[in-house]
Amino acid sequence: MIGTGFMARAHSHAWRTAPRFFDLPLRPELAVIAGRDPARTEAAAAKLGWSGHDRDWRRVIERDDIDLVDIVTPGDTHAEIAVAALEAGKHVLCEKPLANTVADAQRMARAAESAADRGQLSFCGFSYRRTPALTLARRFVQEGRLGAVRHVRAQYLQDWLSDSASPMTWRLDRVRAGSGSLGDIGAHSIDTAQWLTGQRITGVSGVLRTFVSRRPVLDQQVGLGGTASADAPLAEVTVDDAAAFTASFEDGALGVFEATRMALGRRNANRIEVNGEHGSIAFDFERMNELEYYDGAAADDEAEGFRRIQVTDPAHPYAPNWWPTGHGLGYEHLFTHQAVDVVTAVAQGTSASPTFAEALGVQKVLAAVASSAADASRWTEIDEETR
Amino acid sequence: MIGTGFMARAHSHAWRTAPRFFDLPLRPELAVIAGRDPARTEAAAAKLGWSGHDRDWRRVIERDDIDLVDIVTPGDTHAEIAVAALEAGKHVLCEKPLANTVADAQRMARAAESAADRGQLSFCGFSYRRTPALTLARRFVQEGRLGAVRHVRAQYLQDWLSDSASPMTWRLDRVRAGSGSLGDIGAHSIDTAQWLTGQRITGVSGVLRTFVSRRPVLDQQVGLGGTASADAPLAEVTVDDAAAFTASFEDGALGVFEATRMALGRRNANRIEVNGEHGSIAFDFERMNELEYYDGAAADDEAEGFRRIQVTDPAHPYAPNWWPTGHGLGYEHLFTHQAVDVVTAVAQGTSASPTFAEALGVQKVLAAVASSAADASRWTEIDEETR
Amino acid sequence: MIGTGFMARAHSHAWRTAPRFFDLPLRPELAVIAGRDPARTEAAAAKLGWSGHDRDWRRVIERDDIDLVDIVTPGDTHAEIAVAALEAGKHVLCEKPLANTVADAQRMARAAESAADRGQLSFCGFSYRRTPALTLARRFVQEGRLGAVRHVRAQYLQDWLSDSASPMTWRLDRVRAGSGSLGDIGAHSIDTAQWLTGQRITGVSGVLRTFVSRRPVLDQQVGLGGTASADAPLAEVTVDDAAAFTASFEDGALGVFEATRMALGRRNANRIEVNGEHGSIAFDFERMNELEYYDGAAADDEAEGFRRIQVTDPAHPYAPNWWPTGHGLGYEHLFTHQAVDVVTAVAQGTSASPTFAEALGVQKVLAAVASSAADASRWTEIDEETR
Amino acid sequence: MIGTGFMARAHSHAWRTAPRFFDLPLRPELAVIAGRDPARTEAAAAKLGWSGHDRDWRRVIERDDIDLVDIVTPGDTHAEIAVAALEAGKHVLCEKPLANTVADAQRMARAAESAADRGQLSFCGFSYRRTPALTLARRFVQEGRLGAVRHVRAQYLQDWLSDSASPMTWRLDRVRAGSGSLGDIGAHSIDTAQWLTGQRITGVSGVLRTFVSRRPVLDQQVGLGGTASADAPLAEVTVDDAAAFTASFEDGALGVFEATRMALGRRNANRIEVNGEHGSIAFDFERMNELEYYDGAAADDEAEGFRRIQVTDPAHPYAPNWWPTGHGLGYEHLFTHQAVDVVTAVAQGTSASPTFAEALGVQKVLAAVASSAADASRWTEIDEETR
Repeated sequence: MIGTGFMARAHSHAWRTAPRFFDLPLRPELAVIAGRDPARTEAAAAKLGWSGHDRDWRRVIERDDIDLVDIVTPGDTHAEIAVAALEAGKHVLCEKPLANTVADAQRMARAAESAADRGQLSFCGFSYRRTPALTLARRFVQEGRLGAVRHVRAQYLQDWLSDSASPMTWRLDRVRAGSGSLGDIGAHSIDTAQWLTGQRITGVSGVLRTFVSRRPVLDQQVGLGGTASADAPLAEVTVDDAAAFTASFEDGALGVFEATRMALGRRNANRIEVNGEHGSIAFDFERMNELEYYDGAAADDEAEGFRRIQVTDPAHPYAPNWWPTGHGLGYEHLFTHQAVDVVTAVAQGTSASPTFAEALGVQKVLAAVASSAADASRWTEIDEETR
Repeated sequence: MIGTGFMARAHSHAWRTAPRFFDLPLRPELAVIAGRDPARTEAAAAKLGWSGHDRDWRRVIERDDIDLVDIVTPGDTHAEIAVAALEAGKHVLCEKPLANTVADAQRMARAAESAADRGQLSFCGFSYRRTPALTLARRFVQEGRLGAVRHVRAQYLQDWLSDSASPMTWRLDRVRAGSGSLGDIGAHSIDTAQWLTGQRITGVSGVLRTFVSRRPVLDQQVGLGGTASADAPLAEVTVDDAAAFTASFEDGALGVFEATRMALGRRNANRIEVNGEHGSIAFDFERMNELEYYDGAAADDEAEGFRRIQVTDPAHPYAPNWWPTGHGLGYEHLFTHQAVDVVTAVAQGTSASPTFAEALGVQKVLAAVASSAADASRWTEIDEETR
Repeated sequence: MIGTGFMARAHSHAWRTAPRFFDLPLRPELAVIAGRDPARTEAAAAKLGWSGHDRDWRRVIERDDIDLVDIVTPGDTHAEIAVAALEAGKHVLCEKPLANTVADAQRMARAAESAADRGQLSFCGFSYRRTPALTLARRFVQEGRLGAVRHVRAQYLQDWLSDSASPMTWRLDRVRAGSGSLGDIGAHSIDTAQWLTGQRITGVSGVLRTFVSRRPVLDQQVGLGGTASADAPLAEVTVDDAAAFTASFEDGALGVFEATRMALGRRNANRIEVNGEHGSIAFDFERMNELEYYDGAAADDEAEGFRRIQVTDPAHPYAPNWWPTGHGLGYEHLFTHQAVDVVTAVAQGTSASPTFAEALGVQKVLAAVASSAADASRWTEIDEETR
Repeated sequence: MIGTGFMARAHSHAWRTAPRFFDLPLRPELAVIAGRDPARTEAAAAKLGWSGHDRDWRRVIERDDIDLVDIVTPGDTHAEIAVAALEAGKHVLCEKPLANTVADAQRMARAAESAADRGQLSFCGFSYRRTPALTLARRFVQEGRLGAVRHVRAQYLQDWLSDSASPMTWRLDRVRAGSGSLGDIGAHSIDTAQWLTGQRITGVSGVLRTFVSRRPVLDQQVGLGGTASADAPLAEVTVDDAAAFTASFEDGALGVFEATRMALGRRNANRIEVNGEHGSIAFDFERMNELEYYDGAAADDEAEGFRRIQVTDPAHPYAPNWWPTGHGLGYEHLFTHQAVDVVTAVAQGTSASPTFAEALGVQKVLAAVASSAADASRWTEIDEETR
């Protein structure tokens, strides 16, 4: 594993837990974790259960006993590490966003394509796909329960930046973060929407907005939260606080997307609704164990309505390996499911979705939104060739 | 009253009911109802409780015993009737949309302005404003509970056109209806958003979509619903099935709007959410007696969450005149409240909102959305002068 | 109409409104309203739209031009008025509770039985039955959608007595009110449960509780609410604040009932849930336009869940006469529906439910609960003969 | 660990996971797991991550390197193992129910009391207490947010026995299971109610019901689910399918409890609502990350309503050690939290709740309900001495 932050904790738990609840064809071994700060890395190894630790990721990817490299560093470092790991013959799981730029993402996708010829897997961590309710929603689309899709309505609403006095962080600096709400959380909505409907986004019209343009700088960088003193110097926020865009899908559906970190009261409302000719689904991650489903195909007018499916039944994705019906799962289960799918794909020599190519597709939509926003929201096509 | 259709029923009930539950300064008398078809008009008069009936609206507006003319005909006839009624010295209540074109709406607004100098009231029937929960939401904004508004998220979702085989109606014909979902229901969202926030929309980027471009023609025009035979001739749908647009408000808030009659399972989901710096509100007309409110100003981290206010308390707008707390109201109450406010304004000689000028403002936003949609979603300003 | 209080307002509105929305075989005329206080009665006649007024109900029931007597006085006066009206040859609609005692109720039921032989209708105003969602729920039971009923879970939760300092009212005096939460609101739950399931309650075990045993007396009796001064004298509360009981239904279902006016935050949560072998329904009057329905008969494990039916579709009870789908109704519609059903029954010479006999059945369950509560919650049968 | 079934999986995960997310004073080591079937026990050790395995639990409790014995066997074996383990000087964590009989539970409580003098901890696994939302609810009670408690409304609704044709299992056999829904799930409600309010239940009136008295026997006993062939022999169900009881709490609150495994559509609706003089809370385990809270103390009539608290904020119990706000937890987290609390108590030499004495209190309430149900629901006191 390369990286020791928040996502290292989630991924480590997943590798540790997957074989305890699922029958895997291979048993993952947590060999080594790499990070720049030796003390912090050693502590992470102990806390998270890794056998070894290293301050140099290059040394890690050269080790013969390593089969898979799990990259959980910030986005601007993904390309270098992932390409090197693929060239070193490793399978690669890389956290989202694939990269901070389309150019980097393209380089990674090309490297992944070459590696695939050598039997190597590349996989991007759009973990929300592994929410059982969303996997079920996709199954409904594939089974034809919704019929032709007309509307995709996706919102990713958070509120941790609502306070105008909350301090500057690296996430608000374009150089380091690449993007604001659009790339951080809007990317999830784009990936979910394309995967769930099985359709690519072909064009967008977008707008970006920064509500708080300057924020106080704390003496030493802290995590989220914290309050700066009144005389703290101010730094420029160089990313968007919120993004909104309309979109067309390849079979004609109309998409409306919104991403913000300033929707006060919405903690992690990663929502998507899809309306088809024969049915609809609606999902909100704040109630991640539920899927709302409307069945318009049955001719039973007096009994029709959105039904709240608790996605914890043995008939549901991933559910039989956990608890009895009605006993819900939590956020980290997405990563455990991801680990299960990655290990299975590695063992079977199959491809696993989302590939780097799919993640590049998300990156292109993000770039098109930003480009449209910079040009008076003009409709911007996502060229089929480059998609 | 001019018109004998669906809205005639709602307005008649309101005029009849308002004095029974509210202490009005004037008692409305239902003098005469006018419609083109004599038999139908006579029947309407009997059913809805009007003393007289007439086949010529011109005769009605000339009667000395008429003080107020209530126009509930289709939008393309509003301008002619309203202007004539105002010139005849009557107060006018006109159903929304004010008109089918900006030009007509401007003509009406000018006539209303002149009439106002003579003490006449002009009022446009954006009745959703009279939902107690939305009136309360506006009060919250005005009390400063939300602080600076950042996000407006408005959706008006219906599903009665979802079936591709449902027949052609005059509502799908641009000549007669003026517009599709945008003008029919999107107009409500625009009015609510501007009124609730107290801010004008200054620019938009829009997209319109027609999913079902041809529909079967029935032998004789029927109401909503009905199914055509397989060999019925097809007619072209010339309005939008769905509309989506992003918007800027004058103080910088970001708006995201969507209107559709094809969101299967959503019957009348007229929704609006507003996120401010200190609080948020959320509303869905499918649960019209409730307002969701998030208070972010209180420093009580462990107890914060959206609260479901049942807007039926004596402290709430319109509520004390109805039933005990927890006993909800229905759709027609909006019209009764409107009647109360109109009668009160007439008696007091005050202006009543929404005026024709405000309704013209809504019309301009609609026109700007359509214009943007026709020009690759290019950002389109709504000029302050003409607003 | 006999009585001029809160219910007079609701019933008057219903008589006025029913013929405007429904095609009735007879047109109700609001002839005369009677009350003890002449000034108040005259004002009520004017406000509520009655042609005449009288201070003596006996004079009213003797009038030849009166066909139906609508009794909306307090419960302790029902028997005398209703029996007299029936003996005078009138149809009678009597508000719930039928009476304050089983003996009175029996007297009324006997009078009603005799009157029925003469073609007269007697009807008790358990108006919640006319909620479209509950009428639909009953239809589901009758259609067999639920199969054999196992559980009935009914709660009627209000909170207007939560404040220990809120003043004494006649509703808290056993002599005048007969009973507290049990008879006032628990009676609704009992009637709904028996009617909805089509099964009688055969036995109960109950408990009653008074949380605030003394309350301040105000100088002059006011309505609900109001606060007494600190030195106000205290009066004894002689009815129950809350009631709870378990129950058996004739086909073996298990009932759990609770009624309280001290469930802080619950305004008018009149709830019922029924679980059957093949399906379930759940209802809460705070969302009176919705019915939750679980269909367990379909073998579609991955898509099962409670569905939220908006009971506003043309396929639903009473709905076609009102507004388009998704436009909800309010509390007073129950009375309008009741008026429709009563007028129809009168015109057709048919019986209308709930009859006085059915209301007597409710009274017997109430008496059994009180009796059980007074005897250490001992199981108390409701004898079939006397039922 | 003694036992290899469903709960072994949950507890093993907890011991493994607790030190990865919490800073514990001691690090748990998964030394040995014991079970009767050697092959199954060996497999469990491998799957669940235990260093050793043994077919004899007596050998395990004699090992010097064992500090804590975790008992996850069926209820009828608890007393023997727990008492032996306590006598062997071990700390003991025992799954609920503490025992199948009050006599056994008393024996265990006495052994625990003696062991406590020797510094040994005894702890009963009522894991629902460790739901962050319920821990928060209790904190609200303790902070005085609710004021004097008046109503406790607890339901534990499941539906896995709804199908009359589903086969006989050991859980439906009184000899092995001790009780049906009452002891299996009603016990959780009782524990939660007493702990949350801080008040003991002093008396009850109960009723038990068995809806399906005979069920088909399968050739070989399988887990939940499965369908028997038409000619399968039938066995008698000797436990209750459902239980309901009213209750008094020591400070006068009125409780209404219901437990069933036949509430079709309710998967794991472990619900509790508490109404106090100044506030209310409501919880449903099907939405375990949420707590509904009504604050009646604030005099803000126009803004009052139940608020939906997402119990994932750093201010909330257990939450800071997991994920960012809005990222929910799942069922197994209860066990991880329990492990954290047990390890902390062991390290600090403090007592940990629920003790065996508290669990005995729950057992006495269960016994009183059963006794009341067998005696015409007669009110049954739970004697303070023996409580």
